[in-house]
Amino acid sequence: MKKRIICVSREFGSGGRELGKRLADNLGFAYYDREIVLSLAEQTGMDENSLEQQLEIAAPVPFAIHFAQSFTDNLTVNDTTVQLLSLQTRLIKELAAKGDCVIVGRAADSILEEEFPFRLFVYAESEAKLERCRSRATEGEGLSDREILRQMKRIDRRRAEFHDIISPRPWGDKESYDLCVNTTGTEIKAVVPAVAEYYRLWAAATDRGR
Amino acid sequence: MKKRIICVSREFGSGGRELGKRLADNLGFAYYDREIVLSLAEQTGMDENSLEQQLEIAAPVPFAIHFAQSFTDNLTVNDTTVQLLSLQTRLIKELAAKGDCVIVGRAADSILEEEFPFRLFVYAESEAKLERCRSRATEGEGLSDREILRQMKRIDRRRAEFHDIISPRPWGDKESYDLCVNTTGTEIKAVVPAVAEYYRLWAAATDRGR
Repeated sequence: MKKRIICVSREFGSGGRELGKRLADNLGFAYYDREIVLSLAEQTGMDENSLEQQLEIAAPVPFAIHFAQSFTDNLTVNDTTVQLLSLQTRLIKELAAKGDCVIVGRAADSILEEEFPFRLFVYAESEAKLERCRSRATEGEGLSDREILRQMKRIDRRRAEFHDIISPRPWGDKESYDLCVNTTGTEIKAVVPAVAEYYRLWAAATDRGR
Repeated sequence: MKKRIICVSREFGSGGRELGKRLADNLGFAYYDREIVLSLAEQTGMDENSLEQQLEIAAPVPFAIHFAQSFTDNLTVNDTTVQLLSLQTRLIKELAAKGDCVIVGRAADSILEEEFPFRLFVYAESEAKLERCRSRATEGEGLSDREILRQMKRIDRRRAEFHDIISPRPWGDKESYDLCVNTTGTEIKAVVPAVAEYYRLWAAATDRGR
């Protein structure tokens, strides 16, 4: 039987992770997000934060620059990044092979292209994302709205760069996805059953992968 | 009670009109598309084709150019276009005031902004749109794929231009919509119930217009 895979991409602060988790729960699918980093940490002995930095937040740009500019100075760093990306790709394929699942981020939409996953993009207006970030911020974290906005943009830019190393379909372009959900002004919990229903009907009707 | 309005924008050939009509049927809402042109034709005595040309296909660019370049030669044309746009705006507001409805195109999402409509965008990959256009083409119409693609692009460009005269939110940018549906590789009829359900849950949960 064809595997059922949903890949969720999301803007930082849009609630994509929450939507992905609830979608997995609704459909009875496995959910992979932090699990991927935890598993890599186990395999490599690296700590989770370094891994995140290396693989999504900080890696792609230095990787590209170092690769072009210095072949000796940063070989270890490059090497690690490449090895980690390769490990992560293998891990994502292994997880997907286990059965129905929702995978958040990590260019899984591209890595699993041959499985014809349902590609979901979650986004929101800046003000809505800011509000979500504010409400999640730890007491006394003390970032100004401007600083939060700058961080949001920085993280989304890294996600796009990371994604676009692996995928020919640009991150965030609606053409790269089957469904794009704007969470501005609505409650994620409330709309999840309809997203799940959309997925079910889409999966039954699609001619992709046949 | 708050009016329930859905505005559908769509790429040419994506099946947005079919999706809009089926959505209206599913929800028991009125459906307005050709009805708007027919009503304008009745009010003005103009024929439908000229109206379509004037209002969506050919109007915006000549309008802008004429407005800047010649104030005498084309005053009648400009005047007619402006009057028609104004009539159409009034008509759309009147139709929306009647009750729950789905309105396709015509920048209704912007015209009815104060009613906080649900804004839906329907799109598809070029090859899928081409296929749809081919299957609808009259026997012997004899357009090559390249000609159809050129026409598709031209019509979408005009729609965008027309829309963006009225609206500050760019046509086709996912940020301008609440939900974006990619019809590539799926059957519109099959997924409509989930879009209807998404609308119902969204409308119950949204804080817009409260």
